[in-house]
Amino acid sequence: MSHLSNDSQKLVARIRRIAGQVAAIERSVLANAPCSETLHLAAAIRGAVGGLMDELFEEHLLAHVAAPELSPAERAAGADELLTVLGRHFR
Amino acid sequence: MSHLSNDSQKLVARIRRIAGQVAAIERSVLANAPCSETLHLAAAIRGAVGGLMDELFEEHLLAHVAAPELSPAERAAGADELLTVLGRHFR
Amino acid sequence: MSHLSNDSQKLVARIRRIAGQVAAIERSVLANAPCSETLHLAAAIRGAVGGLMDELFEEHLLAHVAAPELSPAERAAGADELLTVLGRHFR
Amino acid sequence: MSHLSNDSQKLVARIRRIAGQVAAIERSVLANAPCSETLHLAAAIRGAVGGLMDELFEEHLLAHVAAPELSPAERAAGADELLTVLGRHFR
Repeated sequence: MSHLSNDSQKLVARIRRIAGQVAAIERSVLANAPCSETLHLAAAIRGAVGGLMDELFEEHLLAHVAAPELSPAERAAGADELLTVLGRHFR
Repeated sequence: MSHLSNDSQKLVARIRRIAGQVAAIERSVLANAPCSETLHLAAAIRGAVGGLMDELFEEHLLAHVAAPELSPAERAAGADELLTVLGRHFR
Repeated sequence: MSHLSNDSQKLVARIRRIAGQVAAIERSVLANAPCSETLHLAAAIRGAVGGLMDELFEEHLLAHVAAPELSPAERAAGADELLTVLGRHFR
Repeated sequence: MSHLSNDSQKLVARIRRIAGQVAAIERSVLANAPCSETLHLAAAIRGAVGGLMDELFEEHLLAHVAAPELSPAERAAGADELLTVLGRHFR
């Protein structure tokens, strides 16, 4: 990972924590844990994936739409990708 | 409204439909309508407000972050406002 | 409103606050207010409608699914309505 | 897994698909894939975790709140757990 930027290393660490949470919810179901425990674990994963989305959204907005050095075409493409992924997101 | 852009007129029409839906849910509660009817109306309002957010998000992104004629400072401010409103949104 | 339960009066008050917020966002668009202000108002409405949904969800769950005096058929119908309104909600 | 109910086996299969998606997004970041690809993968994980929540919510509601054979105390506890996990969810 030495060639990765600091941002990417943080992302990878965040993704690995999510992978750990997904492994824990699998163990919880396999152990027939109480339904409410599994639901809590799922809600926590949901929050963690939301945090990942927040970070990726911010990174993409800053690097591919707002960055001053982008050409108009690159900027338009970056905005378009954001709207494609998030389009109708709030609905 | 004649001085409003087409986009703004569409927004106002959309907002007035939401106002109509909010008036309808008030009538539903005042008439002691079945709980499930009120819940349906609330879910529909939620969807309509989400649609409004989608439209405002797209407008803001295109006009205040992606538009080619913006100065770097305007663009940075536009991105910042978007992150302030939507920050930690997905979580 | 004297015939309304306390719960319904609180709901109506909450709905009227939302109506006030919707009127404010309409004025904001009509006045050509800055896009970021309109976006903030929309995000606040979204939060308020979410709070209304939370309250209606809790009321419905307690009164129409969990209440001890319900018949099995009423309870099944109450659960079904909740799943119909919220079904595929998290997705 | 032979002792697991059909429902649990389906849940485990669903969770393993999510684990596969999380592994894919890690590889995508490690490979310095385009930001938009990573964002797409994250949005897909978000949808899949939402689907898992939908399924767990339905299971919990039916088994621990609506089921006819529950005692009033079990039913109240089941409703309470649901409100604890989902409370203020819509906001």
